[in-house]
Amino acid sequence: MTRSFHPPVRTLMGPGPSDVNPRILEALSRPTIGHLDPAFIGLMDDIKRLLQLAFRTGNALTLPVSAPGSAGMECCFVNLVSPGDTVIVAQNGVFGGRMKENVERCGAVAVMVHDEWGAAVDPQKVEDAMRSHPAAKVLAFVHAETSTGARSDAATLCALARRHGLLTIVDTVTGLGGIDVNVDGWGADAVYSGTQKCLSCVPGLSPVTFSNRAQEVIQNRAHKVQSWFLDMGLVMAYWGGSNQRAYHHTAPINMLYGLHEALVILEEEGLENAWARHARHHAALAAGLGALGIEFVVDEGHRLPQLNCVRIPAGVDDALVRRRLLDEYGLEIGAGLGPLAGKVWRIGLMGFAANRRNVLFCLGALEALLNRPGGVAAARAFYASSR
Amino acid sequence: MTRSFHPPVRTLMGPGPSDVNPRILEALSRPTIGHLDPAFIGLMDDIKRLLQLAFRTGNALTLPVSAPGSAGMECCFVNLVSPGDTVIVAQNGVFGGRMKENVERCGAVAVMVHDEWGAAVDPQKVEDAMRSHPAAKVLAFVHAETSTGARSDAATLCALARRHGLLTIVDTVTGLGGIDVNVDGWGADAVYSGTQKCLSCVPGLSPVTFSNRAQEVIQNRAHKVQSWFLDMGLVMAYWGGSNQRAYHHTAPINMLYGLHEALVILEEEGLENAWARHARHHAALAAGLGALGIEFVVDEGHRLPQLNCVRIPAGVDDALVRRRLLDEYGLEIGAGLGPLAGKVWRIGLMGFAANRRNVLFCLGALEALLNRPGGVAAARAFYASSR
Repeated sequence: MTRSFHPPVRTLMGPGPSDVNPRILEALSRPTIGHLDPAFIGLMDDIKRLLQLAFRTGNALTLPVSAPGSAGMECCFVNLVSPGDTVIVAQNGVFGGRMKENVERCGAVAVMVHDEWGAAVDPQKVEDAMRSHPAAKVLAFVHAETSTGARSDAATLCALARRHGLLTIVDTVTGLGGIDVNVDGWGADAVYSGTQKCLSCVPGLSPVTFSNRAQEVIQNRAHKVQSWFLDMGLVMAYWGGSNQRAYHHTAPINMLYGLHEALVILEEEGLENAWARHARHHAALAAGLGALGIEFVVDEGHRLPQLNCVRIPAGVDDALVRRRLLDEYGLEIGAGLGPLAGKVWRIGLMGFAANRRNVLFCLGALEALLNRPGGVAAARAFYASSR
Repeated sequence: MTRSFHPPVRTLMGPGPSDVNPRILEALSRPTIGHLDPAFIGLMDDIKRLLQLAFRTGNALTLPVSAPGSAGMECCFVNLVSPGDTVIVAQNGVFGGRMKENVERCGAVAVMVHDEWGAAVDPQKVEDAMRSHPAAKVLAFVHAETSTGARSDAATLCALARRHGLLTIVDTVTGLGGIDVNVDGWGADAVYSGTQKCLSCVPGLSPVTFSNRAQEVIQNRAHKVQSWFLDMGLVMAYWGGSNQRAYHHTAPINMLYGLHEALVILEEEGLENAWARHARHHAALAAGLGALGIEFVVDEGHRLPQLNCVRIPAGVDDALVRRRLLDEYGLEIGAGLGPLAGKVWRIGLMGFAANRRNVLFCLGALEALLNRPGGVAAARAFYASSR
């Protein structure tokens, strides 16, 4: 007979999932109700409104896709891209590559604009690609690259796209709730995120939002969306504004309890306060890492406070340190991906995990395992001086 | 400020989600760990093994898709069907229609075989379609039609398909855990289910299983699977047998805690005992409904014990009764869909909800609202005689 699973208690400071607020864990365990229950309709309305607040948008088509961030990405592509379209994809990490896969699986052509892993997307290169591919319909890029910790300039990239008549698809899976995500201010057309990063919720849902312009494109498609499950025209019949909700698929009820609680917590704290908290603890961590002689991959101006990608010091055994952190401290940090595998660690300070306890704990554990002093003291000094 | 959401307490006797076992609600709230944590890998191995037990299969490619049953359906179609293929779809309710949508969105041709809503799929009609479409590659049908409560003969239909050289895609969203689902015994090729029916778990995941023959088809595809998220070739790199799990998408950790607990509970009870429990409480409910003069839509030989589709008595206001059940009793039963809308109720006895308390409660509430006596007494008499 198989026994119930009781997870070890971890501190999650990798690229996500991040530490989940206990209020959200409790919300998940509330009794399930039906997906057409009038009480549930009220919950859905709350979630839509709170997601609009988090995304800083008035977009009516704002809701959580009933699957993880990768499905949110796919949702944006399959709804906006049709066979034969050309899509400019800016790649500066793992997720630009995944965007290319999505474009091609839509029967469209991906024009790739490459930047180094760890660099921000270069708007000049993107504009050059727009000039040399005037028929391109969509620009896709990653605002907050989870694989490198780089932040790209979404406002500039979206403005460029509008000037050249392209729609935008923006990945901010790691951005939402941790740094400014200003969908209406950017004029972005399709933006997706995840729940397990700076919203401190469990993984499994993907908040998305579509501009009116994007909605029109969806409504006027010549080909049906290739995914029935992700067809926003159908999903909206369930999530739409009226009280007559048509059954599409069975909503993941308890996951939505969790997301609701996460968004209530974000509203209580306030968006600006949440960003400031991420920035503050990032600065403390950076001070500590600096004292340990550990360097960031990303230039200071483009660093995500919530995802600290740092070079593994020479002579240090990557896998061994991460295993000892997990086994001896219950602390998870992230490994490098792609060309950064074995070369970097990714230390998350996302949502509920962005706090002083985690910063000092992580620095203390690294100090001990690397046998380098001074990290905790530097972070403590930062906190004392910035009170 | 938005307040936390506290759901009303309901008894869920509709078409799903069904009442969730409190052990599963508690499991959902256990602390989140990373999706590449060694402890999580052990959980995944348990889940695969327990799903094999539930599906009665040795298929290596057996796992939960990270999204609801509709995505499980789509997963089976996009992996097995390629553009230009012909697929025979047997429709006897809502979900055959959804299968047709999936076939067409794969760029394939659906040959429809219709049976009345409430009837089982007629194997003779299916065989006729196979003879008149000898190039057809796949037969798709619904084993347990959630919209009508009809059970079709999966063993016969799969045998027919094998004899004619077709693969099979089988929907048993409502079947798994409630009646015999015998994937290897049937020789089925791709079978999907849901968590929120007879497994008594929350909605949001879709267990699927693929035969070796289906795996070969996936490996030898000429076109990439049109969904990156649902591409089983990629998903397997994460869920596969080795200890080297490659990141594909972030698994819905806490949902998987819930599914694991649901499967542990099923293993503890035993598959045959779970089926017998569903049959017993169905018989009690049927005795009570008969005493109330309420008739079943489906012939006795094809009824699903877990989904009782019954005709609304003449002169009874469908919406009013369902609203009063919800408001006054906290009891959810299901409405009719499609041609059965307004004509039937769907009373679920799924998983944890298949118990004497629910049967007597539902009959008592219906007795009171319909002002017809004798339902509870008849069910009590059944229980007394069948002890």
